[in-house]
Amino acid sequence: MEIISFLYLGMIRSILVSFILFCIMKAEAQQEDSLFIRRLSDEILTNSKAYENLRVLTKTIGPRLAGSANMVKSEQWGAQAMKVAGADNVWMQECMVPHWDRGGKDEAFALYGKNKKSLSVVALGNSFGSMKAIQAPVILVNNFEELESKKDSIKGKIVFYNYKFKPTFVKTFQGYGDAVRYRSQGASRAAKYGALGVVVRSISHSTDNFPHTGSLSYNDSFDKIPAVAIGLQDADWLSDKLKSERINVSIHTHGKFFPDAKGHNVIGELKGSEFPDEYITVGGHLDSWDNCEGAHDDGAGCVQTIEIIRAFKALGYQPKRTIRFVLFANEENGLRGGNKYADEAKAKNEKHLFALESDAGGFTPRGFGFTASADQFAKIKTWEPLLAPYGACELSIGGGGADIGPLNRALGTAVAGLQPDSQRYFDYHHAANDTFEAVNKRELELGAVNMAALIYLVDKYGL
Amino acid sequence: MEIISFLYLGMIRSILVSFILFCIMKAEAQQEDSLFIRRLSDEILTNSKAYENLRVLTKTIGPRLAGSANMVKSEQWGAQAMKVAGADNVWMQECMVPHWDRGGKDEAFALYGKNKKSLSVVALGNSFGSMKAIQAPVILVNNFEELESKKDSIKGKIVFYNYKFKPTFVKTFQGYGDAVRYRSQGASRAAKYGALGVVVRSISHSTDNFPHTGSLSYNDSFDKIPAVAIGLQDADWLSDKLKSERINVSIHTHGKFFPDAKGHNVIGELKGSEFPDEYITVGGHLDSWDNCEGAHDDGAGCVQTIEIIRAFKALGYQPKRTIRFVLFANEENGLRGGNKYADEAKAKNEKHLFALESDAGGFTPRGFGFTASADQFAKIKTWEPLLAPYGACELSIGGGGADIGPLNRALGTAVAGLQPDSQRYFDYHHAANDTFEAVNKRELELGAVNMAALIYLVDKYGL
Repeated sequence: MEIISFLYLGMIRSILVSFILFCIMKAEAQQEDSLFIRRLSDEILTNSKAYENLRVLTKTIGPRLAGSANMVKSEQWGAQAMKVAGADNVWMQECMVPHWDRGGKDEAFALYGKNKKSLSVVALGNSFGSMKAIQAPVILVNNFEELESKKDSIKGKIVFYNYKFKPTFVKTFQGYGDAVRYRSQGASRAAKYGALGVVVRSISHSTDNFPHTGSLSYNDSFDKIPAVAIGLQDADWLSDKLKSERINVSIHTHGKFFPDAKGHNVIGELKGSEFPDEYITVGGHLDSWDNCEGAHDDGAGCVQTIEIIRAFKALGYQPKRTIRFVLFANEENGLRGGNKYADEAKAKNEKHLFALESDAGGFTPRGFGFTASADQFAKIKTWEPLLAPYGACELSIGGGGADIGPLNRALGTAVAGLQPDSQRYFDYHHAANDTFEAVNKRELELGAVNMAALIYLVDKYGL
Repeated sequence: MEIISFLYLGMIRSILVSFILFCIMKAEAQQEDSLFIRRLSDEILTNSKAYENLRVLTKTIGPRLAGSANMVKSEQWGAQAMKVAGADNVWMQECMVPHWDRGGKDEAFALYGKNKKSLSVVALGNSFGSMKAIQAPVILVNNFEELESKKDSIKGKIVFYNYKFKPTFVKTFQGYGDAVRYRSQGASRAAKYGALGVVVRSISHSTDNFPHTGSLSYNDSFDKIPAVAIGLQDADWLSDKLKSERINVSIHTHGKFFPDAKGHNVIGELKGSEFPDEYITVGGHLDSWDNCEGAHDDGAGCVQTIEIIRAFKALGYQPKRTIRFVLFANEENGLRGGNKYADEAKAKNEKHLFALESDAGGFTPRGFGFTASADQFAKIKTWEPLLAPYGACELSIGGGGADIGPLNRALGTAVAGLQPDSQRYFDYHHAANDTFEAVNKRELELGAVNMAALIYLVDKYGL
């Protein structure tokens, strides 16, 4: 009995000692992480090149849709910027990209009585131009249900989808998810009933009159009719006017596809010291719509990505795992860059541990959303206190990024998306006011701080 | 023994039943609160008048410094807006306010060799004008320590305080707290050593060249020398140029005080149904600096305050306690409104349960900071899950507002401040770019949502 007690006490003692040692080590590790993340933050908030890089990308190159001459310029800029930031290795990963071109100035008019009012419109991406101006009576529908109920009145008309971005979603991406089907499917669903064209209320809750483009998807079973987005002030004017007047709308657009062009993902690397064959990817997409500077979408994600290289090098941080910094090609109207990256990773049987994308604007960070296993997420959750002081205090399940989705689907790689505050995003998204001036320097930098911190933690602890 | 067991079991049963009932009631209450806050959010995000009210205040009235004609106009506007929003009762609480006037256009030039460069400056609030232009060699000091070490070289010079807003504070109000002493004390500390004037680097981390005003405090022991703030680009230019050249600076300012003027706190009320003699206060300050529209500082807080009245009335919410909505007078250069409000509350022996101020800009909400007892804060902390979905997920100790500070000090009232995201605040604070256009509609509204929710919870549960 006494020997057992003695053994038992010995066991308790050794368990206690182990536990205390574990606690001390854990506390020390947390302390070390906390200090390193503070250094990252200080470095980026003091010496960041992200804002100046964004100025160069948006102001000296500007719009950079897949297949355009500016796409090529932006790829060259991206490779050079990564080298300057200190990447060990920079290369171009070739992929063929669609080449849609707007072809000219989009125009639309409302004609009523003897009046003619110019409407603030932009052709939807991937839409086929009317080529010559078309004119027809306009018919307003508030949603697809109304379209169906009016299907016998659609033939020969221009359909005006006036579905409103719901203001009650606090997280505005939910409002976007709710409304975007009118942009993506509206043309073909109206063409099915004989419409000649569609005017779609911009997927935005802005207070201005900028029209917001974005891609549509034609259904090959129906005519590929012209489609424009209309600014919200004009949408409200049109819907109001239609209560009392018959209105014809004319549309003149010029969009068409050229043969696929050669594009590239721009990739920089910091080689891992312990596990060089394990990859962590962080990126944004380099292409933008052709009607804007693409500052929030997604110049911000690109320069934040490059900033992480610079900050790691400035602090002499040598990653354990190989970190890939990727400026993806063609997110907006094809996703060829993201698909190529995943295809090649799979073909080479690469081990991809984690991928992070910033493609929700250069706004103040609020958190990250993860698509990961329960075990992985449980581990990630323990990092919340380390990130919270820098703004990304909400680590939640659900999220990623369009360009890293293929990697998740092909290899099961855990993915995450930076979640900046979303209140202003759809004021600018795919509209001419998505300019450098719409990005705040510190908000952009804090996004990079949180991204760098998360990459550091994944690199150090694995997933 | 069996009887005791029986009694004992009975006790356990009744405790269990009570506990389960308590849990059910608590869950139901939380559910009810959650639903009501959702209704508040939906109402405000859909029908808010805050943004339109802000437009009227900033664009049709504009700057409204204490003692100015616009102060009077803004008080009339505020009273009317509260009536329209549905306050039971609206009145003006008179208080005498200081009347400082800029008196003309502030000017400064750098003179070096044969060159003359205009500097972007604005006289500091409460500063005495130079009246005629003064000119003297400029001496740069980076901080007060340098001033002391150079004290024998100050006489007859203009001191240029080039203390930089520290970028490494993630919460920018800490950076402001660190740097603002150069604005408030710089003039007198330089005058002590015989300086003729001071140029203070604007207390900002902006990327532009707007100078930022704000009040200084003269020490009556020394000459009251002229003082201007300088835009950051010009501050950098000046400090750079001074490395290689001797520069004279000329300053011409015109500020002076007139006799105190009659001002007012504008107060609206929703009468309590159960405890009409217990008061909850919510407000912002109506005055602004004279060089800007005062949209973030503090038009935002005023229109959010008025919006809470509108939203409560729209939902038919009848408060238990009396809620006072206050647009305070003269926060910027005197705090007479806040002092008056507290003095009168004390004189009337009113019971003030809680006061909330929004005076940190109309940006996306991140939390509230409280000055309250440990017990009160423990209770408040239980509300965190109710507020988190609307952005104010950080309830922390420390905070309040300049105008409600006197109430806390006089009566021990628990106070809190809305804490919006602070990254952009000091880009606009007290500068000409603090305009309506710098405020985002949804961010402004979300602030009101969170404020309304907090007021609802305090009203319902007390503190």
